Amino acid sequence: MKPSHLGELAVRVRAASRVVARSSSAVRDDALRVAADLLSAEAGAVLEANRRDLAEAERRGADGTAVDRLRLSERRIADMVDGLRDVAGLPDPVGEVLGGWVRPNGLRVQRVRVPLGVVGVIYENRPNVTSDAAALCLKAGNAAFLRGSSSAIESNRAVVSVLRRAARKAGLPEDAVALVEDTGHETAIAFMRLRGLIDCLVPRGGPGLIDSMIEHATVPYVLDGAGNCHVYVDVAADLDMATEIVVNAKTQRPGVCNAAESLLVHRSIAAAFLPVVRRALGDVELFGDDRTRSVLPGVAAATEDDFAREYLGAKMSVAVVDDVGAAIDHIARFGSGHSEAIVTADLATADRFVAEVDAAAVLVNASTRFVDGAELGLGAEVGISTQKLHARGPMGLRELTCVKWVVRGEGQVRR
Amino acid sequence: MKPSHLGELAVRVRAASRVVARSSSAVRDDALRVAADLLSAEAGAVLEANRRDLAEAERRGADGTAVDRLRLSERRIADMVDGLRDVAGLPDPVGEVLGGWVRPNGLRVQRVRVPLGVVGVIYENRPNVTSDAAALCLKAGNAAFLRGSSSAIESNRAVVSVLRRAARKAGLPEDAVALVEDTGHETAIAFMRLRGLIDCLVPRGGPGLIDSMIEHATVPYVLDGAGNCHVYVDVAADLDMATEIVVNAKTQRPGVCNAAESLLVHRSIAAAFLPVVRRALGDVELFGDDRTRSVLPGVAAATEDDFAREYLGAKMSVAVVDDVGAAIDHIARFGSGHSEAIVTADLATADRFVAEVDAAAVLVNASTRFVDGAELGLGAEVGISTQKLHARGPMGLRELTCVKWVVRGEGQVRR
Repeated sequence: MKPSHLGELAVRVRAASRVVARSSSAVRDDALRVAADLLSAEAGAVLEANRRDLAEAERRGADGTAVDRLRLSERRIADMVDGLRDVAGLPDPVGEVLGGWVRPNGLRVQRVRVPLGVVGVIYENRPNVTSDAAALCLKAGNAAFLRGSSSAIESNRAVVSVLRRAARKAGLPEDAVALVEDTGHETAIAFMRLRGLIDCLVPRGGPGLIDSMIEHATVPYVLDGAGNCHVYVDVAADLDMATEIVVNAKTQRPGVCNAAESLLVHRSIAAAFLPVVRRALGDVELFGDDRTRSVLPGVAAATEDDFAREYLGAKMSVAVVDDVGAAIDHIARFGSGHSEAIVTADLATADRFVAEVDAAAVLVNASTRFVDGAELGLGAEVGISTQKLHARGPMGLRELTCVKWVVRGEGQVRR
Repeated sequence: MKPSHLGELAVRVRAASRVVARSSSAVRDDALRVAADLLSAEAGAVLEANRRDLAEAERRGADGTAVDRLRLSERRIADMVDGLRDVAGLPDPVGEVLGGWVRPNGLRVQRVRVPLGVVGVIYENRPNVTSDAAALCLKAGNAAFLRGSSSAIESNRAVVSVLRRAARKAGLPEDAVALVEDTGHETAIAFMRLRGLIDCLVPRGGPGLIDSMIEHATVPYVLDGAGNCHVYVDVAADLDMATEIVVNAKTQRPGVCNAAESLLVHRSIAAAFLPVVRRALGDVELFGDDRTRSVLPGVAAATEDDFAREYLGAKMSVAVVDDVGAAIDHIARFGSGHSEAIVTADLATADRFVAEVDAAAVLVNASTRFVDGAELGLGAEVGISTQKLHARGPMGLRELTCVKWVVRGEGQVRR
């Protein structure tokens, strides 16, 4: 795709976004429900397109994880269909009045929630993101401008074709959902630089994609960042509770961003707690500091890199700390600002941890795994933001909107 | 300043930000009031420093506007002192609970307003920004990391010295307010790239600075953008009201971002309204489209550039449009997303304009000049954002904070 073609497509998507923005939520929900029906009816064609992607991946010798992420099945398509219907059933975030007042001169001021406009999504591999992301964008009154990976191009095309026809049937422009079909790197960079045409960019991918966005994007973005999450077990912890939380946070689903990567243990309980938690963690490989290794001599030595790392697997770094202040300092140094947990029965210690740890989410006596949209009660999520501006923590429909000031008067002028 | 020196300073400011974040608002307000007293007591020294900047500016042959912006006086220092006291008196945005609920598993979830951390401010020329910006940052629990222009370096140093001593007297670290003393371009770029050390960057300057930030910054930023603001006078407008609003929006203070730059007139009233408003606008030079010039033959022809321009002076572009839809399209094409006004007595037309114009602020029957923090009732403002993420419209103290999720349990783990 030449840059001019990308630009032309972007102009069409932007024009479509103005129509979507002024559509009623009934029409947008209808588009999502029609898309669910169509996707269900055309599952065969989508699976056929997916088989072409899979064949190409095998030809290229892609690894098992990548192939698994790419693979659709009757079951995965049924999940996508359910996802479209679930999003249609969520409350509409658009139109909410966030506040309002009357000024002394009679001006009536309101802050109103409105769509962002065009939301760009750059994602890798998994074709189910195509319908999930487009559904959330549309629901919040935005056009969805999608740029998937080359490995999933056939699957993505098939799903987007369904979404575009559904939009049209519901009375919205087809370009309310659009796919960038050129999956080359240069086009990805050009996509990130469509300032004025894309209002917000949401990446769904690995560190390489994130770094590329930070370096190249001129479009504002919300990052779904890494999670180097800690559990700090305080001297005042119930050690059974602590063991259960550490095991859950580390092992319940190790490959996700809200899994724990690092365990901090108060020095006064290290001798009692570390052997217990090590047994409970089973296969998890530990990397410890000197004080940890003096209790657990068999554990490998942790480097600074270990403490900074998001393993996303059956590994965990461990440090013994002097007190909650040292735990907070350790997290300030190595944490990625995602989710940080403390286990303690002491109120002042819990309050201090909550107040001083700088992260999207801070948990007291609960597993870090709860930090996602559904678990916290938000409904579907686009991702979990580790940035501080606009969205922090689970990003739901609300984070796909912005605010407009509306000022009504009867001829007021400024003196 | 070598990059390593900038980095070392940034690390100190970041450490200070952690202390500021956990300080009470009483301590921060105290720091601002002490700063006000000190600045008042040391006005002579600050003016002396300012005279050195002015002498250097004159040696370089700086133009009158630049010299005026640079110049401090007893009066301007008194305003800065009042500003510090006013900000101290505002309500603290930190600690506000934005929402909270209990999940079925008993987890107690809250969203709480917290400081951003380190706020970087890049600004030009005017040394009063030093105290204004630092005060807002500190009030919202942040460290203020300031990078002013070379032309104001002596003045900025003197003001920052006051602020740092005030912070220390109030029990905060001096590095809660820090000035980058190297005002070279390379250092500015390095400053914009202190990702992980600065949490949010706020530019106060012209288009060159904004463009440089968009291109180079890796730190998240909130832009104080250009204002190409329109007033649309509808067929159903009260023409006296329309005249008064257009004149106020254009001439009450032409050099600011919320001044109107472009007038759109419904074709059915063009012949009646244009001669009247032209007379009322007095010295304002008009640039009109063909239909405007058929009514006002003496008016110069407007180019596309004229319609896109923020004149910031006694000039205005004028177009005659077919209806409110054409006005909305014109604004979508040329507007900068700042403030857009309609004058009409027709409810449906007003509602359509409010719904369809995509801007930070939309006004009905009121002057665009009302779009600022004080006029809308927010108190002091850092600027007016024309971006959609995080802050849109007047940025007050609230926009210098972010949100943290706090989750409290009794040992819950995820199944």
